[in-house]
Amino acid sequence: MSSPIFHLDVSVASSSYPILIGEAMDWQSCLSELTQNRQVMIVTNVTVSPLYLQKLKTALSTVQKLGVFELPDGESYKNSESYLSILDQLMTSGFNRDCVVIALGGGVVGDMAGFAAATFQRGVDFIQIPTTLLAQVDSSVGGKTGINHPLGKNMIGAFKQPKLVLIDIQTLNTLPERELSAGISEVIKYAAIADRDFFDWLEIHLDSIMALDAKTISETIYRCCQHKAQIVAEDEFEQGRRALLNFGHTFGHAIENHQGYGKWLHGEAVGAGMVQAADLSYRLGWLELSDLDRLKVLIQRSGLPVLSPIHQPELALELMQRDKKVKNGQIRLILLRSLGEAILTKDYEADALLKTLQVTSGAES
Amino acid sequence: MSSPIFHLDVSVASSSYPILIGEAMDWQSCLSELTQNRQVMIVTNVTVSPLYLQKLKTALSTVQKLGVFELPDGESYKNSESYLSILDQLMTSGFNRDCVVIALGGGVVGDMAGFAAATFQRGVDFIQIPTTLLAQVDSSVGGKTGINHPLGKNMIGAFKQPKLVLIDIQTLNTLPERELSAGISEVIKYAAIADRDFFDWLEIHLDSIMALDAKTISETIYRCCQHKAQIVAEDEFEQGRRALLNFGHTFGHAIENHQGYGKWLHGEAVGAGMVQAADLSYRLGWLELSDLDRLKVLIQRSGLPVLSPIHQPELALELMQRDKKVKNGQIRLILLRSLGEAILTKDYEADALLKTLQVTSGAES
Repeated sequence: MSSPIFHLDVSVASSSYPILIGEAMDWQSCLSELTQNRQVMIVTNVTVSPLYLQKLKTALSTVQKLGVFELPDGESYKNSESYLSILDQLMTSGFNRDCVVIALGGGVVGDMAGFAAATFQRGVDFIQIPTTLLAQVDSSVGGKTGINHPLGKNMIGAFKQPKLVLIDIQTLNTLPERELSAGISEVIKYAAIADRDFFDWLEIHLDSIMALDAKTISETIYRCCQHKAQIVAEDEFEQGRRALLNFGHTFGHAIENHQGYGKWLHGEAVGAGMVQAADLSYRLGWLELSDLDRLKVLIQRSGLPVLSPIHQPELALELMQRDKKVKNGQIRLILLRSLGEAILTKDYEADALLKTLQVTSGAES
Repeated sequence: MSSPIFHLDVSVASSSYPILIGEAMDWQSCLSELTQNRQVMIVTNVTVSPLYLQKLKTALSTVQKLGVFELPDGESYKNSESYLSILDQLMTSGFNRDCVVIALGGGVVGDMAGFAAATFQRGVDFIQIPTTLLAQVDSSVGGKTGINHPLGKNMIGAFKQPKLVLIDIQTLNTLPERELSAGISEVIKYAAIADRDFFDWLEIHLDSIMALDAKTISETIYRCCQHKAQIVAEDEFEQGRRALLNFGHTFGHAIENHQGYGKWLHGEAVGAGMVQAADLSYRLGWLELSDLDRLKVLIQRSGLPVLSPIHQPELALELMQRDKKVKNGQIRLILLRSLGEAILTKDYEADALLKTLQVTSGAES
């Protein structure tokens, strides 16, 4: 087993923690300091569990007490019932305030385990072991945790920074292709909002990434985590710049909401959503047509949808109104000033948005 | 209407907020800055609502949108169902991340409304208007929020500092005598753990406090909030000194748990619990017998129970094991080094604790 290839530190006002990135890492040596002689509850799901639970359990041979909570797989289980079940198990197993919760899985597992860790006894330690590309480049870093409400995604939650993020790219070998694409969606997001050079690099290396070339995928994850860490350090509680990470998400959440959670993967909805946000940016005269096309092509090459399934613009608008970034009834959107530079704004014409919603839906394709 | 008599600032790393204490205050002028043109959700209960909801609504005439969530009265409703119902109403009423949640009521209302505010869209603004003495001197200040789990009190929750605590002692005029006593329990706690002078003062002024003399009760609340604010400023997340505020609470929680939430008021359980903690402190040779007696007498004069209703010491011990302060299976207790000075410790003989549990239960009385 090899040592981590990359080590990155995330610093926020309240804490600082490492992200370790590598291939076939020694999990025990990464975890022992934080788990030795402590009560540890692993939260995972039925898909990930047969693949990596045994490896994790072996790495935790020095803990005082080990519990496992297994969720069904899928976004539709990211709800209050699952959240309360995790807390029930922590209570019935007699876990105390000094325990550690480990999330082993993708974004859904990480968000729910994190929210449980944030609120069990008003907060216990938390470790992320993300096993999907999406979780590795995005959701496991930065401390956003939460569950969905029937009326909106991630509407209930907390900011909870983990003590460690352990990213072993070997876990990607078992990831379904569709999930890999969904992860690349968030990779493209970083490039689109903040790093034009990275965008150029992605156009060149996309095939290697999709083939899971170890060196390329590690570097991809590292660059994404660097961006995320920097933005989170500047703005832990999303009062400013951090909102830019939601590029494509207001459109995407409307799609997820419309389809019912779990039908479209989050990354897929964000893929189509980024095209919509970029289309509006182009319509406002900010983004070059050639750059809109480049973004569309890269998203398509990644195996992601580029058209929204919501065929009625008014309905899409209504669903977008439920976004957390809505302020005084106005939908604030993250748009591109250019490829590699995003802003959060409410200064766009309502007509332009409606036009975008019209032409970017499958109905017009 | 008069201006606040006392103004106190609480400063923690993440924020700073005022506590305003007065009699028959002008609520509108206290609230307008934080609520004008905003969405405001009042959380209250069926007992408090007929008494003060209209006054609060009148004070909020300049808000953009006003919602009211009314809970049943009592500790037994401080559960996940009530918590999720508050979130449901926020969602169905279309409240957004810029809204304000106001708790109008006692500790249960404040704890639940605060937890909802802490977790709705990962945190919205929160204002406390405590209407019981217990909430005014203790639970409304310092940012502890949460709900009970069937297996333990306050086991699910978050730290969430309010933006304002508005204490109008006029609300105490409608408080049942038993609830007033329960509040005095927490008042005595501050004196016992940190302020022997205040203890002397309480012995002299207890009758005025119980008669709700405005000047005396305001000063009492102010002195308690000063202690609380100072301790919270030093230790927002209860990693050290703040735990001392739980004097009597480990014993008290066992009583509440045993009786079923709501049968004994929290303050009543803490009253008997403080006698138990003091008894053990005496048994360890730390507290003078005369000071143990003074504490017992003051608690009794306040109309509070001084004996635990758990007649089997082993059962009491088992219930105490569920406390959040349990570390590696050991019950850490807040004990008195002397009247006015407390410590958190696990250095006591198990036999002494058992003896205390025996002699302080009604069975031996």
